Parts: sequence; structure tokens; C-alpha cells
Amino acid sequence: MIDETHDVGLRSWVESAGRAGTDFTIQNLPLGVFRRESAAAPRLGVAIGDEVLDLSRCVERGLLDDVPDGVRAACRAPALNPLMALGRAAVSALRSRVSRLLRAGQKPPADAASLLAPASEVELLVPAEIGDYTDFYASIYHATNVGSMFRPDNPLLPNYRHVPIAYHGRGSSIVASGTSIRRPCGQTKAPDAPAPSFGPTRRLDYELEVGVLIGRGNELGRPVAIADAHDHVLGLCLVNDWSARDVQAWEYQPLGPFLSKSFATTISPWVVTLDALAPFRCPAFERGPDDPAPLPYLDDPHDREQGGFDITVEALLRSRRMADEGIEPHRLGRGTFRDMYWTVAQMVAHHTSNGCNLRPGDLLASGTVSGPDEGSLGCLLEITRRGERTVKLPTGEERGFLADGDEVILRAYCVRDGFARIGFGECRGAVAPA
Amino acid sequence: MIDETHDVGLRSWVESAGRAGTDFTIQNLPLGVFRRESAAAPRLGVAIGDEVLDLSRCVERGLLDDVPDGVRAACRAPALNPLMALGRAAVSALRSRVSRLLRAGQKPPADAASLLAPASEVELLVPAEIGDYTDFYASIYHATNVGSMFRPDNPLLPNYRHVPIAYHGRGSSIVASGTSIRRPCGQTKAPDAPAPSFGPTRRLDYELEVGVLIGRGNELGRPVAIADAHDHVLGLCLVNDWSARDVQAWEYQPLGPFLSKSFATTISPWVVTLDALAPFRCPAFERGPDDPAPLPYLDDPHDREQGGFDITVEALLRSRRMADEGIEPHRLGRGTFRDMYWTVAQMVAHHTSNGCNLRPGDLLASGTVSGPDEGSLGCLLEITRRGERTVKLPTGEERGFLADGDEVILRAYCVRDGFARIGFGECRGAVAPA
Repeated sequence: MIDETHDVGLRSWVESAGRAGTDFTIQNLPLGVFRRESAAAPRLGVAIGDEVLDLSRCVERGLLDDVPDGVRAACRAPALNPLMALGRAAVSALRSRVSRLLRAGQKPPADAASLLAPASEVELLVPAEIGDYTDFYASIYHATNVGSMFRPDNPLLPNYRHVPIAYHGRGSSIVASGTSIRRPCGQTKAPDAPAPSFGPTRRLDYELEVGVLIGRGNELGRPVAIADAHDHVLGLCLVNDWSARDVQAWEYQPLGPFLSKSFATTISPWVVTLDALAPFRCPAFERGPDDPAPLPYLDDPHDREQGGFDITVEALLRSRRMADEGIEPHRLGRGTFRDMYWTVAQMVAHHTSNGCNLRPGDLLASGTVSGPDEGSLGCLLEITRRGERTVKLPTGEERGFLADGDEVILRAYCVRDGFARIGFGECRGAVAPA
Repeated sequence: MIDETHDVGLRSWVESAGRAGTDFTIQNLPLGVFRRESAAAPRLGVAIGDEVLDLSRCVERGLLDDVPDGVRAACRAPALNPLMALGRAAVSALRSRVSRLLRAGQKPPADAASLLAPASEVELLVPAEIGDYTDFYASIYHATNVGSMFRPDNPLLPNYRHVPIAYHGRGSSIVASGTSIRRPCGQTKAPDAPAPSFGPTRRLDYELEVGVLIGRGNELGRPVAIADAHDHVLGLCLVNDWSARDVQAWEYQPLGPFLSKSFATTISPWVVTLDALAPFRCPAFERGPDDPAPLPYLDDPHDREQGGFDITVEALLRSRRMADEGIEPHRLGRGTFRDMYWTVAQMVAHHTSNGCNLRPGDLLASGTVSGPDEGSLGCLLEITRRGERTVKLPTGEERGFLADGDEVILRAYCVRDGFARIGFGECRGAVAPA
């Protein structure tokens, strides 16, 4: 619902929140977890301009006295899970209060500076204790492109347009943005090799994905109806589902990707709430004449009209040489989350349709966000056609897949006339040698 | 290592531990978590005969004063994870102390009765907080049988003999033995149907598996060498990986099983430690002339000689009518864990070979334990050849797949001349209507 927290005229007394191009305007207010020193306990925060608002300290100072008791208690937890468990109304109440607190024209709280920490001076952590992580495959462009490489005669499998395809991912190896990613070893076998061998992957790739963080859970055995799905979502973030393509090609049949993915998954630190995204809702993917209607449990008129999110996503690469020479990251692709064949609500409804329980803090990732154009692809596998072509970097370096020292940076933002820009911040990771 | 705790002559002052056929002899001493009332905090326990020894109370009474402080603290936790994290030496020290405590000939502690609770009067819980659950596919007989149904022209894929195939499972829906299993709904499509439909599965199945509970974890980026793998395992249990075969057939390509499995997985309450299993180690699967040598990271001479476990496993079914008429459960199959193509150590080494971190309490399941004979198959899919034949029950009822009201009971035990029998207890679940 669009309300006064989205008013484009709002300004904050935190000046950097008004800087052109900032992701963290007062209309955004994403939630995350940070600590000031490596030994300190994690705390909840809200990103505002270049600062992080310390929610725990806000509670101590009595600045959140008019939000429900449960919300105040959850603001003092070391992860977002307790707040997530309270559901969307609780998060909305907090948003509304924080918006008023940070608004210019209101008197800043006494000793306002002590409520804030410069984002550049804190450590941003994985925002929730992620119990289970599920990775979808919701871009039909990505599925078709990848399918054409792994199965040239059969690119898009017959189930794709009916089933929101997904697999369980590995929770333990989800890491915070900025964590370096060691090039994994694994079994690979070239098609003409007589036997497989074991060693560092030669086809390390990124995947540009949008993450969905679950808010309120559902009981085992109780599916979530598609019309109620958003009540179970806290918000969205960015996910880099690092992939070893040579390992994947050899291991993935018949039970799906395993070690080709489980060595690391990077998550961005800030969760952009569904409330913040309200102005950027859009229709679901427009199905063509060849596309079947979704089965009733995946079909909802409101979701058809408003189930999409108009979020621009991009992936950039900076090689070590580019960093040494002070060259800006090079954009590999820019797509939009509008292009996903399945909506967030369809993912939640499908996931729980067999009674599977989601818990607060569970992560659903969208799968690689790729669009129909050359410039809108979300991984190197697609961009370089499995390494057959290369990407040229400004230094003249070329890439089929990622090289040691390469840093991948994911970004996302929403813009719409009459509304303030909101952004997701960054999801970064650099490749360390095997 | 076989030591005095395995001595076949040991007797316990808990009389039921000496009853013929008991799973929980004094040579076993499996670990679990129980509570006396539904509101009570979970406590660690050791199964002995028909009783559960309350480890927390043993600490309170000073009966574990000669084990290290860390072990005593871990014995008072509400789950096995802290004890798991301490590693195998800690668990061995506890085993040794508990063995002496329960031994006949020793004087039973004063007020010994208050240290014990009748197993029939307590609730047995999931024994650990399971962060991640991975399901392997380690029986070549199962893989070949299933492959022949899903891909008649290509039953065993070329990677099988090289890669310990596995997929990530769902952690949130792992339930304690005895929890009823609601028949899940899902998308299915008959080969000749023009489109899929959604409804209760018509091909509900069980899978008889052995579970591996991880003890000490490994750091992200640090693989566990095969020779060290058992240092990271607490012990084994039973797992029923319930499966909706019609959902699985339609959804599983290209990313593997998802909703066909994630509605529920049942785990047995007692973890039989590697120490208890020491007398039952046996050679790994004997590879034939067509089988390639494992790659070096999966090969270890000690594992070849001693990497197997001679555990007999069986699955039984009792229909509602059988229960009403007081008829004993009917055995569906009996196999041995010796028949697995990949060892537990190979599973751990493979899982971590890309740097993936395992955490204390993580669950690896073996995949369906099926052997080469008709009587040694571990799921109905194989036993009834996808429902083409039926199993006849003593009541005259027939089953292609599971019917509502059917209870599936998994059991396992080890016997060897010169050693006491040890058993795993039961892993039970009954099917509730959709």
C-alpha cells in the first residue's frame, strides 16, 4: 500500500539520504544487521544515506515507545528473525515510526549522532539466520538459454511453463557481501575425456538473482494460498549464486546441482521491505498464446495485475588489474525483475503447496534474472555462450568465465516518475585462488 | 576402536537392557533428546533397555564429574549440537563414563530410579537442530532400479560410479518418529494427459535410509580429507525420506526432486555412535571389473578395508486394518548397509571437497538402501515396479503405493558373533489423509 512514507517530498535530517543517486533514501529504510567491531554483538539497523540507524539504541532511548512491545523486543535481537516472525503489520509499524524519526522538519533526537554509525565503518552481516535456502529458476529466458547449452535438442523442458522449478540450496555456505570466494575444486569431465578428474573449476560463474526473505512462517501441512503469499514475505535482497559450470555439467543428473553451487552463495546486507517496494509493483509476466494458464493454486487476479516488481538489476565486474589502475567496474548485464516468468507469490504458494513449512528467515532466490536481450543476461554462461565468446574489459583483458582476483558486484534499484529512487545497495564478492 | 565398553560380558543393573532382542544393550548407549511432558524443556538422554538415562540429571547429581567440563555443559543443552561440536573424543569419554555408571556389579547410584524415565512415557524428539540436510543416492542397486523406470534406455548415468550423487534436502520438515504424515498435494501429469493437474499424490512412498549425523564441523573453504572424515561424524540413525513419486516424475528435471520430498522426512530418535558401531565395521563395497577406481580424494586404504558398516535394515508396513485386528507389521524388505556403493567417509569427503562447510547436527542421508535381491529393496517404487505389481498384506489387502492409515516402521540392528546385539530403535510414521 502506498502511504505517506513513500511521499517523494519527504526529506531526512540525515543529509546523505538526500544525495542524488543514493540507494537509501528516507522512502526506502531497508533492514539489516551490523556490528561496530568484530567482537561486538550483532544489532539490527536501518540504512539511511551513508549511515546505519541503530535500532537497539533507538529502543534504549525510548524512541520506539509507540510501536508494539513485541516489535521493540525484536529490534534488540541479533538477527532479523524475531521481527520477521511478527509479520508484515509489525514491520509496517516500525517503518512508519522510523520514517517519522528520520524526517527533516521533525526535531532530530538529542544526541542523534550516537544513534547512527557510518556505513563505511561497520561490518554488515547476513541479515537473518537462514534455516533453509531454496533457489528457483524463474526466468524463462535463462532456462531457455541454459537448456539450449546442456540439452540443445530440448532446451525448455515440458514442465517449465507449469511448475515453478526450484531446488534446495545449501544454507551453511551463505556468506555476507564482501566475503572472498575461494575457487572451488570439483570433479569435471570433458565430453571427450575417458574419465573425470578433480581440480579447481575452470568455469567459475556468478548468477545475478533476487532473494526473497520469508517473514511469518507457515505450519507444516498448511499451504499458503497465493492470495496470502505476501503476508509471509519480509522483503527482497540480492543474491549471487556462484556456480562452477564444469562441475555442474558433470554432476547435475539426475538429482540436480549440488557441489557446483554449495561452496558459497553471497547475500546482500539490506532487506528492502515489501512496504518500500509498494510503488514499484507491476503486472506479472505477460504470458503469450503458447503459455498455458497457471493451475488454480498458482493463479490469482491480483497477482496477475500486481505480482511483479519493477526492479532494475545489474552485475558488474572489476578485475584485479582494473582495481589496481583505478578503473570503475565494468557492467556485464542489466536486466529487470519484471522479466521473471513466475512471481514471488507464485514461488511461495508453490513451495508450500505440498504442506512444506517456511520459517522466518528462510531464503528463496529467484534464479538468474535474464531478459530477452543480449544486454540483459545474468551470468557468464549465457553472456559468453559457455565461454565460446569473451567479454572485453576496459583494460583489454578478456573473460569467458571468472578469473582469480575478479570482483563481481550486483546492484539493483527502482525508479518511477513521481516517486523517490530506492536501491538495494551492493552484493559483492571477489574470487580467491583455489 | 573396540574397547571394554563393547565387552559381550557386560551387564547393566537396568534389567531390561539384558532382555533378548533389545536394541539398547549396555554395549550400545545411543544418544537422543527427550522430554517428560510436552511443556518441559528437552533434555539429552541415553537409551538403555526400556529406559532413558537423563544426562542432565546425571550432571546435577555429580555422576559425570570425571568427564571434561565442556562435555558436562553440553549434556545439559536441549539438543545434541553442543556435544557434537566437541568432537569424537568428548563423545567417547562420555560413553565410557556412562557405560561404567550403568554396569551391573557397580553399585547403582543412590536414587537410581530418578535418573531414568521409562521410554514409553517420554516424548522422543528430533535429536539435533539440523541446519542442513543432504540426501545421497549411494546404493547402486537403487540407482539402477529407479533409473530403469525413469530412463529405461539409460538406467545408470555415466557419472554414477565416479560421483557420490546427492541433492540438498529440506531441513524445516524433518519430523520426529511417530509424527503423522499428511498425504501431500502436488502437480502431476500422466504421460498421455494433455496437461498437468493438482491434487493429492497417488504414489506416496517411503524410502529406507541410514542417516549420518555430523559431529564436529569444518570451516568454509576447508575440505575434510577422507582419512579424517569419521572425526566429523557423531553417529548413525534411520531416516524415512517420504516421496511422492508422481510429483517427482513431473518436477524433477532439470534441477532434481523438490516438493516430491520436502513435505516430510522422518528421523529416528536415537543416534548410534561410531564408537558403538566399532565392532560392526566391514570392507567398503567390493567394486567389480567394470567399476573405475575412485578418484584420489575419495580413496583411502583404511576406508576400503573398514569403511562399511554391517547394519541390517528393514522396513515394515501396518495398515489400519492390521492395527485394528492386532496383526503384526508386515516386512516389506530387509537389506544391509554394506550394499552401499559409497561409504560414509566418501560422502563426507565428497560433500566438503568444494570447501562446503558442514556444521554440528547436519544430516546426511544415504539414499534408499536397496540390495541386489528382490527381498532387499528399500522403497515401494522398486518393490512394486512403479505400482505394476502389488504387495500382499496378511489381511489380503494389496498395496502398489501407501494408503491412508498405513504406518511405515523402519528398524536396524547389528549382530556379530562374540559381540552384543545393538539396534537403532524405530523410525515410524503413519499416513494421514490429504
